[in-house]
Amino acid sequence: MGERSSFYAVVPAGGAGTRLWPLSRAGNPKFLLDLTGSGRTLLQQTSDRLRPLADGVVVVTGTRHAEAVAAQLPDLGESGLLVEPSPRDSMAAIGLAAAVLAHRLPDEDVVIGSFAADHVITDGEAFSTAVSTAVEVARRDLVVTIGIEADHPSTAFGYVEMAEPLEVPGSYAVRAFTEKPDAETAAGYLATGRYRWNGGMYVARARVLLGHLQRYQPVMHAGLLEIAAAWDTDAREEVVARVWRTLTRIAIDHAISEPLAAEGGIAVVPAALGWSDVGDWRSLADLTPADDGGARVLGDARLVRGLGAEGAMVVPAAGRTVVVLGVPDAVVVDTPDALLVSTVDRAQEVKKVVDALAAENRADLL
Amino acid sequence: MGERSSFYAVVPAGGAGTRLWPLSRAGNPKFLLDLTGSGRTLLQQTSDRLRPLADGVVVVTGTRHAEAVAAQLPDLGESGLLVEPSPRDSMAAIGLAAAVLAHRLPDEDVVIGSFAADHVITDGEAFSTAVSTAVEVARRDLVVTIGIEADHPSTAFGYVEMAEPLEVPGSYAVRAFTEKPDAETAAGYLATGRYRWNGGMYVARARVLLGHLQRYQPVMHAGLLEIAAAWDTDAREEVVARVWRTLTRIAIDHAISEPLAAEGGIAVVPAALGWSDVGDWRSLADLTPADDGGARVLGDARLVRGLGAEGAMVVPAAGRTVVVLGVPDAVVVDTPDALLVSTVDRAQEVKKVVDALAAENRADLL
Repeated sequence: MGERSSFYAVVPAGGAGTRLWPLSRAGNPKFLLDLTGSGRTLLQQTSDRLRPLADGVVVVTGTRHAEAVAAQLPDLGESGLLVEPSPRDSMAAIGLAAAVLAHRLPDEDVVIGSFAADHVITDGEAFSTAVSTAVEVARRDLVVTIGIEADHPSTAFGYVEMAEPLEVPGSYAVRAFTEKPDAETAAGYLATGRYRWNGGMYVARARVLLGHLQRYQPVMHAGLLEIAAAWDTDAREEVVARVWRTLTRIAIDHAISEPLAAEGGIAVVPAALGWSDVGDWRSLADLTPADDGGARVLGDARLVRGLGAEGAMVVPAAGRTVVVLGVPDAVVVDTPDALLVSTVDRAQEVKKVVDALAAENRADLL
Repeated sequence: MGERSSFYAVVPAGGAGTRLWPLSRAGNPKFLLDLTGSGRTLLQQTSDRLRPLADGVVVVTGTRHAEAVAAQLPDLGESGLLVEPSPRDSMAAIGLAAAVLAHRLPDEDVVIGSFAADHVITDGEAFSTAVSTAVEVARRDLVVTIGIEADHPSTAFGYVEMAEPLEVPGSYAVRAFTEKPDAETAAGYLATGRYRWNGGMYVARARVLLGHLQRYQPVMHAGLLEIAAAWDTDAREEVVARVWRTLTRIAIDHAISEPLAAEGGIAVVPAALGWSDVGDWRSLADLTPADDGGARVLGDARLVRGLGAEGAMVVPAAGRTVVVLGVPDAVVVDTPDALLVSTVDRAQEVKKVVDALAAENRADLL
């Protein structure tokens, strides 16, 4: 066709990361934080991973975080930052990027891939290979998900069930997506060898994705096309103000992936990425190397003294000396206005505390 | 004799209370803190307890804390505050007070009682009764100790062994003082019913105490008499500077109580006082009532949220919100520059941490 082939990475940057309270806050969410001690935030690491693989990176975020995202990723420029006036879930975010890119690049065969802004991937090479494979499969008009190797029977993630191999080596048909399973079901999934975690990494031709959206969610499709046509013009503000609030709040998994899987339109590229969604303090502890005393420190380790603190996760983010004495597997998160003391086993219940604070209108602590 | 009989309370106020770090510091020690949430510090509570029983209260403290003691106890006045130029242990402190009072009041039959500045006594009436009895016994030229009811076989205290009853009801001869026992020995002590804890509360005629000091520690006795003669004169500074540093560093228990017990010169008044030396975080937890969620809070309970925090001891002294989630029996002490996270079972090891900080010259944290 002579058409130029391109690949754009779309990064929806939203969500507060409530289970990482009090480090992660509504105003300073997980994706804006350096949670690996690398000197780069999760958003920056996501961009660093994608930029060499893509012709461009587009971040979709809310008004509250637009300035911080632009400051952390100066390379994005005006065109690479799509600001949503209000959250409308992942289908609107990814659909907006697909529609804007398709409108901007009418003569290109644009493949887009969506990648969360707040996940950790330690095997960059495996990630590159998986994305390349996924892009190749996507050019055959399939919607492709990267299926993350499930190294334990997690009940926190949805799974994708692989079927027969497809033509492109390393790709497989998808039989179905599943909801988060109970522990027994999850163990059964792992035993079959056919299940992978669904990390929400979707790769598809922009026009294929928009075509499916047109079939499944025609009103939303029309709205996004109207917004996309106005995006790079003086009319953006008026059109967005009028149309955005009419968009259906729905996740891409429900809007497209699940029904399309039933039609045989989804492929999966399984990959072992060293992936983590850093979903709670236990996940972060698993990612953080232990120091001499057995404690895992995110931040300035000189501030932390552990004695009988094997497996503890300590975040001395208030700059104070933190002593952990005889509390193995402790979670201690020390911030200037709030302190969490918990354990790796219990820390994911911090969501209850955050919910209680919200119910009491303690916006100062959220 | 026509001589006026008087009773003066002597309160040695020293010691940092290392095991209550990071709340208790060298510059802000235990006795200057309100550890019971009563609005009064341990020193103030000690004075409050003694003032109705005594003709006067004399506090002996170091130069570093003289100003804070005077501020907390304005009633002391200049004459009630004896400032030691350097710590010389309890015999020097109590001996100084005895010598100064004996010198100031040559025509009175002065009984003195020494009482630590940093202990808690919840049964004030039992304390008053015990002190009255002890004073009565002391007028018969015995050195009297108040023997604290041992409600568990503690290995942290020395014990006093009671012998036959003496003439004054409620008083007994002392067979011996014992060092801190091991757990088995302590349990054996309790089983006999004859042993009481030695809390260092001694009551004696000033001239009797000084007489024993003259026999056992004649050089120290002479030095203290020289200082006492100069104390209320212009010569105080010169004499103290010259003589104080020559005084033997020895505890009153070793200097007088133990050898005198062997001679039959000590009596004991046993009493159940609701006493605690608030020696570590476990002791303080035992003194602190639990709130609804099971956590015990010293300070502003509104700052603390406990979930699965039964038996926890929380001190929100930095004014920040503290969440304790799933750590029963936690000890969380939050101060502006240092945070301790431990458990009731392990918290007394905090001394190790403080020792390590001292070894690293971290005076800022001590």
